Amino acid sequence: MASVQDIVVAASINLLSVLAFLLAFAFLRLQPICDRVYFPKWYKKGIRESPKKSGPALKRIVNLDFRTYLRFWKWMPEALRMPEPELIEHAGLDAAVYVRIYLLGLKIFVPIAFLAFAVLVPINYTGESLDKIKDITYSNIDKLSISNVPPGSLRFIAHIAMAYVFTFWTCYSLYKEYKIVMTKRLEFLAAENRHPDQFTVLVRNVPPDNDESVSEHVEHFFCVNHADTYLMHQVVYNANKLANLVETKKGLHNWRTYYQTRYERNPKARPKTKTGLWGLWGANVDAIDYYTAEIEKINGEEAAEREKVMSDPNAKVPAAFVSFRSRWGAAVCAQTQQSSNPTIWLTEWAPEPRNVYWENLAIPYVELAVKRLLMAVAMFFLTFFFMIPIAFVQSMASIEGIEKVFPFLKSVIETERVKSVVQGFLPGIALKIFLVLLPTILMAMSKVEGLTSFSSLDRRTAGKYHLFIIVNVFFGSIITGAAFEQLQKFLNQAPSEIPRTVGVAIPMKATFFITYIMVDGWAGIAAEVLRVVPLVIFHLKNTFIVKTEKDREEAMDAGGINFYITEPRIQLYFLLGLVYATVTPIILPFIIVFFAFAYLVFRHQIINVYDQKYESAASFWPDIHRRVIIGLIMSQLLLMGLLSTKGVSKSTPVLLVLPVLTVWFHRFCKGRFESAFLRFPLQDAVIKDTLEKATEPTLDLKAYLHDAYTHPVFKPVEAERTVFIDEEENNPLVTTKRTSRRENGGGDGGSKPDSGRVTPRVVLD
Amino acid sequence: MASVQDIVVAASINLLSVLAFLLAFAFLRLQPICDRVYFPKWYKKGIRESPKKSGPALKRIVNLDFRTYLRFWKWMPEALRMPEPELIEHAGLDAAVYVRIYLLGLKIFVPIAFLAFAVLVPINYTGESLDKIKDITYSNIDKLSISNVPPGSLRFIAHIAMAYVFTFWTCYSLYKEYKIVMTKRLEFLAAENRHPDQFTVLVRNVPPDNDESVSEHVEHFFCVNHADTYLMHQVVYNANKLANLVETKKGLHNWRTYYQTRYERNPKARPKTKTGLWGLWGANVDAIDYYTAEIEKINGEEAAEREKVMSDPNAKVPAAFVSFRSRWGAAVCAQTQQSSNPTIWLTEWAPEPRNVYWENLAIPYVELAVKRLLMAVAMFFLTFFFMIPIAFVQSMASIEGIEKVFPFLKSVIETERVKSVVQGFLPGIALKIFLVLLPTILMAMSKVEGLTSFSSLDRRTAGKYHLFIIVNVFFGSIITGAAFEQLQKFLNQAPSEIPRTVGVAIPMKATFFITYIMVDGWAGIAAEVLRVVPLVIFHLKNTFIVKTEKDREEAMDAGGINFYITEPRIQLYFLLGLVYATVTPIILPFIIVFFAFAYLVFRHQIINVYDQKYESAASFWPDIHRRVIIGLIMSQLLLMGLLSTKGVSKSTPVLLVLPVLTVWFHRFCKGRFESAFLRFPLQDAVIKDTLEKATEPTLDLKAYLHDAYTHPVFKPVEAERTVFIDEEENNPLVTTKRTSRRENGGGDGGSKPDSGRVTPRVVLD
Repeated sequence: MASVQDIVVAASINLLSVLAFLLAFAFLRLQPICDRVYFPKWYKKGIRESPKKSGPALKRIVNLDFRTYLRFWKWMPEALRMPEPELIEHAGLDAAVYVRIYLLGLKIFVPIAFLAFAVLVPINYTGESLDKIKDITYSNIDKLSISNVPPGSLRFIAHIAMAYVFTFWTCYSLYKEYKIVMTKRLEFLAAENRHPDQFTVLVRNVPPDNDESVSEHVEHFFCVNHADTYLMHQVVYNANKLANLVETKKGLHNWRTYYQTRYERNPKARPKTKTGLWGLWGANVDAIDYYTAEIEKINGEEAAEREKVMSDPNAKVPAAFVSFRSRWGAAVCAQTQQSSNPTIWLTEWAPEPRNVYWENLAIPYVELAVKRLLMAVAMFFLTFFFMIPIAFVQSMASIEGIEKVFPFLKSVIETERVKSVVQGFLPGIALKIFLVLLPTILMAMSKVEGLTSFSSLDRRTAGKYHLFIIVNVFFGSIITGAAFEQLQKFLNQAPSEIPRTVGVAIPMKATFFITYIMVDGWAGIAAEVLRVVPLVIFHLKNTFIVKTEKDREEAMDAGGINFYITEPRIQLYFLLGLVYATVTPIILPFIIVFFAFAYLVFRHQIINVYDQKYESAASFWPDIHRRVIIGLIMSQLLLMGLLSTKGVSKSTPVLLVLPVLTVWFHRFCKGRFESAFLRFPLQDAVIKDTLEKATEPTLDLKAYLHDAYTHPVFKPVEAERTVFIDEEENNPLVTTKRTSRRENGGGDGGSKPDSGRVTPRVVLD
Repeated sequence: MASVQDIVVAASINLLSVLAFLLAFAFLRLQPICDRVYFPKWYKKGIRESPKKSGPALKRIVNLDFRTYLRFWKWMPEALRMPEPELIEHAGLDAAVYVRIYLLGLKIFVPIAFLAFAVLVPINYTGESLDKIKDITYSNIDKLSISNVPPGSLRFIAHIAMAYVFTFWTCYSLYKEYKIVMTKRLEFLAAENRHPDQFTVLVRNVPPDNDESVSEHVEHFFCVNHADTYLMHQVVYNANKLANLVETKKGLHNWRTYYQTRYERNPKARPKTKTGLWGLWGANVDAIDYYTAEIEKINGEEAAEREKVMSDPNAKVPAAFVSFRSRWGAAVCAQTQQSSNPTIWLTEWAPEPRNVYWENLAIPYVELAVKRLLMAVAMFFLTFFFMIPIAFVQSMASIEGIEKVFPFLKSVIETERVKSVVQGFLPGIALKIFLVLLPTILMAMSKVEGLTSFSSLDRRTAGKYHLFIIVNVFFGSIITGAAFEQLQKFLNQAPSEIPRTVGVAIPMKATFFITYIMVDGWAGIAAEVLRVVPLVIFHLKNTFIVKTEKDREEAMDAGGINFYITEPRIQLYFLLGLVYATVTPIILPFIIVFFAFAYLVFRHQIINVYDQKYESAASFWPDIHRRVIIGLIMSQLLLMGLLSTKGVSKSTPVLLVLPVLTVWFHRFCKGRFESAFLRFPLQDAVIKDTLEKATEPTLDLKAYLHDAYTHPVFKPVEAERTVFIDEEENNPLVTTKRTSRRENGGGDGGSKPDSGRVTPRVVLD
């Protein structure tokens, strides 16, 4: 096990890498050329425009004001300065509450760390159990942990008392935070402007009717059953194919633009492409002509499909968005059961238009039930048996495997240097690729389950990922061996034995987790702020595709919080903090640094970068709460197991009280707060309705809602690519590069991300 | 273990006792004097009156028509004759669906039994594993069970296949039955006449308001938030004390009547009583004067309390019954959330007036949450540790214990005969008393949990009792030892080991359960039809208290289905049937006989006897369904455990599919059917509203609902005890006895249940 010195070394290395990331960020963010990468939110909001419209060309690309470099750390206090109400206004409640998760981490762990260091560390340190054992190599870290207390010692009373204190403190913090978030949500909903979703209910599983179309059936049903409040409805078209066509066309457009740009730069040779997959094989044709023809073809298809969807009655799915005269009417309809058959006429509060996941609006009940079963089984196998296919791929990816499939590579591979790379690298990369792809796989699984909004997809996927992390990262690190081996081990062990097995291993893994926190937590967050991938992609797109201001808008990928990826990872830190608080408190400062740093970075990001795809008014908070509770209960059970191996098995009943109380606390909070995250209370609906009636008595709601819930592909297309940029004049920053390159003859192709090299040369002309 | 012969002997004994019960019933039910015990339902309905108004006195008491005795078995086909729609009309849906539980048992187990006897019994019998083992005494029963198949045999494929078939058949039956019951419920609700509860919502946790009373606050809130549909409301008074006073007064009245009757029969000596508890000690006073004075006193108290409740604002609890103009309005209010704080303004569909449990209408949210936690903990200890206090009482109830507490009894107890009775009898009786009291204890626990209707109390208590039965009767019989010892054993065993431990023991306990079914099931049902306790009590009351026709009405205790006692017991038979279907199919005929016999008896009882306290329109069915599913899953897990000890551990994954599918099936059914048992769909509400508007356009709903939900003690008291019976003339049957006794001088006191002896003597005068 690692000693304190090892930890210090690891910490230093990680701190240095974090520092490197931060310095790179501090430098890049000041460069006007990267402005759209690091401040896209302000562009989207229209507050910021391409900076420094006049002045020397150099200044438009590189920041020459050296005074600003001296204040490179300024972004940190700036990120914290914006008060929360303004932040909610600016970035939405989802984002503002998301950063509160980190704040919650700080609120829970700072006092716990103080207490643990004041009480438990001295008690552990003077335990001197490890001094007596000669044949075990122990480190200084262990002297601060519970391992140093001799078995059966009365000192464990302190640990048990602290477990109580930590539990109560965590529950108290959770309760307070739940209350705050609920209040904020209610305030947010109350203050919100008029939104289509306030008046609208999503109706699914409209039963088929032989005499009426879906639209007529919906109209009649709601005219009868919500006579006083029904206003109108919008049917849902099955436009999935159409949406695919539009998407494909967009890609083809990009390619054509790319080749056109190449041709403009080098008019001597018309660019060629191959017609096969990814342009890798097939007949060699003129690229611009090919793509123009392809676009023509797809234009025809699109028009035909559009025609078909609008006219074919089968293209209407048995679902509709039904709007009401008042919020009260919508709230009533969303919360009540319409038919005595609970699998038809399903109503739910409509997600806001951009939050609708259109593909899933038309799944019948039985199919949905079967799909959910299949996904649950798949999830089980994915969690516990994912190592089997990975191991198979790893064996394939060995020297022998490659030689078998690609015999012609044999001579290359057999060289000593390549061989060592393949052997050392490939097996790891298979696992790494899987882990990177995992959230996407889980998201695909959630989509199969038929959820109808992006927010619910995110939440469901986060739940799956959380399970995976607990099983494979937390337990997987503590008990070595693949998950299915653990499973087998657990099944063949007494239930009371499991916490013991895991509990014993916990103090020994403290140093591993400290390193993990530094690598995955600290460095990961620092990488987040630098936005390497969007940075590269933006410059690539900017160089090859961007022609108009609108193109540049599109190239600017603001991204957003990937809730389903990041939230389960945060939960791991909560889990680690709670588990180790009583066992090895030395881990707590590392977690606190993570939470503080992440809070800072994400607050900066949501202010300056992220553009959330939808706004769900913090409806994810019940999940956060539940998962922290799960972590808390796991920590209590594991401490129970650990202490029972320490000769104080009498502590078990004392500690057993804690999970019971915690479960009860969770149920209490659920009853107290959760429904505020699920339903629109009638009282609030009436207040908003009354207010609106008083202030806007002449509002034409029907016109307002008219096409709020049409599928995005049917939305009127904005006039496309007409306003070309008046080059050199209005938007000198990026176009300069392109035009000046043209002046240079621009012979260097265009497929390399060379903008970094090119631009200074141009400016220095 | 018992052989086939033993079983036959036990069966004969039980059959004889059943026959004795049935003959006694067949005889007694024909006697006019018992008419009100065996046909109270018809009296309550006003269809039947005291029989045979004219004719000789003897005929009024004893049935002399000997032809009827020859047709003593006639009640059985008669019980089956009434078609179900009529039965629903006659006895209500609750009762009609309750007997369907037994029918469901038949539907599930008859085909299973046929299959098991056709397939499994031959396979088991020719297994010949037990023939080879010499040192184990086995019985013929075991030769028909799975024990007879040698370990590792391929014959187990048949058992696994049958487990699949049985599971699918059970699920299919459950699904069909759920659907039928749902349809019946919806039809019942649709066909129902106007009921106050259709228009009414129970509102609880009305928040306190400084400026307004509860009544005003409710009025204002619903006028605003349900402006179009709100009609009126009725506040709830805390009349618990008043109800107690009324109850006490009734008891005192009964006692006065008793002493008055005694005095009338023996005018020489005015009866005396003691003022202490139960008349056992205290000053000796004139009984009639004493009770008259007591009633006077309590009358004063009652008037004062009535005054106080009506005027004191604190006597109004923060709850109200809010009524709406239409069923639609009530359905909307019941299903929606009113306030953003989900712990205030809680609305739920009001129970029908006689189903309201008034005591629990005013419990704040936090108190309720704490109470539920305490009850859950209490339930855990009651289930697993109830043997500890029982064992303590048993030790107290030993010879030494009694001698210690009552030293003066020493000489009596020490005699050999008394000693043996005490030693053999007392310990058993402590447990028996506990088991008899258990449902009452569980009901009291459910009441603490704050449920607001009798139907939900019944359902909750049934759930508790079911848990207790599974742990203490089912597992308790299979694994000997007290429940807490089992618990400890299970905690220290691997989860995969538990089904194995239990599974191995299961075939060995088959004969025990066969006996159990005969004693508890067969004989218990036969005792049910005889109604021994109501029979005795009716005759006691009839002799000593009944003076008026109304008194006699009250003395006639129709009783009802004690859902919370009987339903969990039925579930034990489902569990046994499912568990033993693949293991020892010989048990199935016994279970089928139980279900068939119980179906017959309960159908007879609900037609002729039971008078249900409330009607919940079969809202208990989801519980039935869930518990059968629990039984099914337990049977699958136990078979898995059993087979894994039989050398076919490869069967585990094959069998593991079954519980997964079953759980999924349960969730599917839950989604498909359950909400029909919880909510009033708007479509149905609108249909009923429209119909009513068309047929009764002038209905004054306000007047109709005016005092529907007043506490029973405030209901106008009917003219009390005025119409004395015109003795000898109109109601000769019972009064004859009294008057004739008066003629006899009636000197034999009245505290002994001697009506059986007295009446013939009187008649034979």
